[in-house]
Amino acid sequence: MEETTPGSTQAAPTSTAASSPPPPVPTGSSAALFPGLITREQEPLNLELPFPTLAERLVPTNQFYVRSHFPVPAVEAASWQLSLEGEVGQALTIDYDELRRLPATTLMATLECAGNGRARLAPKAKGLLWEQGAVGNATWTGVPLSALLARAGVQAGAQEVIFEGADQGPVNDEPRAPGVIPYARSLPLAKARQPEVLVAYLMNGQPLTPEHGFPVRLVVPGYYGMASVKWLHRITVSAAPYAGYWQTLEYAYWRRTHGLPTLVPVAEMLVKAEIARPALHEFVPAGQPYRMFGAAWAGESEVARVEVSTDGGRTWQPAHLLDEAVPFAWRLWEFSWTPPAAPGRHTLQARATDRAGHCQPTTHDPDRRNYMITKIASVEVQVG
Amino acid sequence: MEETTPGSTQAAPTSTAASSPPPPVPTGSSAALFPGLITREQEPLNLELPFPTLAERLVPTNQFYVRSHFPVPAVEAASWQLSLEGEVGQALTIDYDELRRLPATTLMATLECAGNGRARLAPKAKGLLWEQGAVGNATWTGVPLSALLARAGVQAGAQEVIFEGADQGPVNDEPRAPGVIPYARSLPLAKARQPEVLVAYLMNGQPLTPEHGFPVRLVVPGYYGMASVKWLHRITVSAAPYAGYWQTLEYAYWRRTHGLPTLVPVAEMLVKAEIARPALHEFVPAGQPYRMFGAAWAGESEVARVEVSTDGGRTWQPAHLLDEAVPFAWRLWEFSWTPPAAPGRHTLQARATDRAGHCQPTTHDPDRRNYMITKIASVEVQVG
Repeated sequence: MEETTPGSTQAAPTSTAASSPPPPVPTGSSAALFPGLITREQEPLNLELPFPTLAERLVPTNQFYVRSHFPVPAVEAASWQLSLEGEVGQALTIDYDELRRLPATTLMATLECAGNGRARLAPKAKGLLWEQGAVGNATWTGVPLSALLARAGVQAGAQEVIFEGADQGPVNDEPRAPGVIPYARSLPLAKARQPEVLVAYLMNGQPLTPEHGFPVRLVVPGYYGMASVKWLHRITVSAAPYAGYWQTLEYAYWRRTHGLPTLVPVAEMLVKAEIARPALHEFVPAGQPYRMFGAAWAGESEVARVEVSTDGGRTWQPAHLLDEAVPFAWRLWEFSWTPPAAPGRHTLQARATDRAGHCQPTTHDPDRRNYMITKIASVEVQVG
Repeated sequence: MEETTPGSTQAAPTSTAASSPPPPVPTGSSAALFPGLITREQEPLNLELPFPTLAERLVPTNQFYVRSHFPVPAVEAASWQLSLEGEVGQALTIDYDELRRLPATTLMATLECAGNGRARLAPKAKGLLWEQGAVGNATWTGVPLSALLARAGVQAGAQEVIFEGADQGPVNDEPRAPGVIPYARSLPLAKARQPEVLVAYLMNGQPLTPEHGFPVRLVVPGYYGMASVKWLHRITVSAAPYAGYWQTLEYAYWRRTHGLPTLVPVAEMLVKAEIARPALHEFVPAGQPYRMFGAAWAGESEVARVEVSTDGGRTWQPAHLLDEAVPFAWRLWEFSWTPPAAPGRHTLQARATDRAGHCQPTTHDPDRRNYMITKIASVEVQVG
C-alpha cells in the first residue's frame, strides 16, 4: 500500500520495534503538559493551539490541540487489547506488542476538529467555542486498518466499521440518552479500507501520549478529527448503518435530499485556509513589507491555491504555497504585504481552493449546524 | 385488499362521493371546536382527551386528541394536489375529486402520540407533557397508499417512502437546524405497501377537519401518530434512508446494536392499557362493586389480555375485553372491583399483553428517551 500512500514509509517490524521506546506509563491528563495552549475546558480536557504561534509544518505533540469527550482513560499498554469482530470471517484480538510487530506505515496528516472556528459564529453556537487552533498536523505511525480487515475477512453485506474508544461516560446534554456510553464512530467500509487509515501507536515518532489516545488510536486522514477515535480497543464490522450518538445528535449536519434536509454524519474535511500571522488586532508597521503566513488544508483533496485579500475581500492575490504537496497534510503559505504608509485599520483575509474547484464560502451554511466552519475569516489589524 | 383488512368496507366511487358532503372551507384552528379537551399548547394547537371521559370505542372527532407541530395550514380542497414522485416509473399528481373517485377503504384504527404519558416521567421530560389522553380511536376512509404506489410504479432499489405535510415553520429548539421546513416522515417501503396504510379524506365518516389534516392525511395503523402525516401533499419514493428532523432529533429512540446505542425512528405502537375510570384520586364508595374500565391497544399486534391489580401490583386478575377484535383498533375492557368496606387509599393498575407475549414494563427504559411510554401507571383512589 506504500505505493498508493505517498509520503508513507515502510518500517520493518524490527526497526519499528527499535524505534519504539518502552511505552510510558499513562500519567492521566494535565494541562501543564501543554505549555501555552488555550484551555477551552478543563474536565474533560479540551485544549487549543494559539494559532498565531504556528511556526512549522509539523506541530509538536505538546502543542497539538486536544479534544476529549470524557476524562482521559488510564489504559495500560501491557493489558490493552484490540478486538475486531462483527461481520468478519474470523474475529481476532491483538495486543500492543503484536500490533507493533506488524508492518507499519508512517504518514503525515492534518486533523481538524469539526467545530474549529465555532467562536466566529453568531448567534453563539452550542458546543466548545474553538477559535482557529483546533487543528494540527503531525506524523502518524501504525498498522493500516485494511491489513487487519483483510486478516479477519470482511463478510459480504458489510456496510460500515464501528470504532470504540476506552473513554466513556454519561451524555450530559441528553438526560434520556443512552446513559453511560463509550465514544464511538463509524466509517463507511470503502473509507475504512483506504491505505491511509491507520491503527496508530506513534505520533511524531513517539508513543502516543495519554491525551492523544495512548496506547492506540485510529487515524483517519482526510476526515474531521472526530473520526480518529482515541484509546481504540474495539472494532466492529457492521451490516447496518451505525447511527450512534456522535454521528446523529452530535457531529452530524443537514444534507438536502428531495428538497428535504436529512441528517448525515460529519465526515470529510472541507478546504480551508487560516491566517497565523498577523494575529487578530496585531500592530503592523506602516509602509514596509510584512510576511503574512498561515496554513491551508483540503481533506481528501489537495490545496490548489491560496489567495489573500487585504481590502476586505474586494480583490484577491495569490499567496505562495510552501512545502511539498503531501496527501492529507496541510501546507504552510506566505504572502508579502506592504501596508500603506498612512496609519489605519485593515482587514486581511485568506481563502483556499481545492483541486475540485471548491472554495470557501463567505457565510456559514446553517445546514452545517455548528460544524464544518470554513467561512472566510477576517483578521483586522492596526497599521502605523 | 379488503380480505386482508378485516373491518374495512369497499365504498363504490359513487357511494363514496354520495357519502361526502361538500368539503368544508377550512376554518383554521380553534380550541373552541373541541369542548372539554385539555389544552397542552395553544399555538401550535395541541389538545388532549380527558381520558376519564372515555365512553365509546369510537372517539368523536371533536374529542380526538390534536397534535400539531406548526400552525394549522389553511388548505383548500379545490386547489389541493398530491404529488407522488421520486423512484417511480411515472410520477403522478392527483386532486381531491380524483382521489375520492378511486376505490376506497374504511377501517378503524387507534392513533397514539409517541409522547403520550410523558407527564408520568421523572425527571421532567422534554416535550409536551401529555397525561394519558393523547390517543384516540376512529374510522378512517381513504385510498390505500399501495394502490397509488402501484399506479406510479416503484423502481427497484427503493427503500422508503417520504410523506410531506403542508404544515411548516422554523424548528425552534435547533437554531442551526434546517430553518423553515415542512413536517415530514418516512415509512419503510414494506410498511407503505401494507393494505391498511391509507391516504385518508374521511374521519368517522366526515371530511377531515382542518386540525386533523383537511383535506387529506396519511393514516398509518399500527404506528404511533407521528407517522400519520396531516395535510399530506407530497409523497416521495426514496432509494436512501430518510433521516429527517422528525425521525432523528425528534421521534427517535436508542436501540442497542453490537452493544452500542443506535438512533432509530419511532415506529410501531407498543402494547398498552389505560384506566379511564376510576380517575386519579376519584372517590370510590366502600364495599360495593365498582366498574373499572379503560382501553387497550397493541400496535401491529393484538391485545391478548388485560389484567388489573388492586393491590399495587402484587397480584393481577384478568379483565374482561369488550368489543370484537379488530386489527389496529383498541378494545375497551372492564373489571368489577369491590373495594373493602373500610375506608382507605388504594392503588389500581392495568397492564396489557399482546399476542407475541409482550407485556408492559414497570419502569421507563431511558433508551426510549421521552417516547413510547408504556410503563404500568398507578391510579390512586380514595375508598370510603
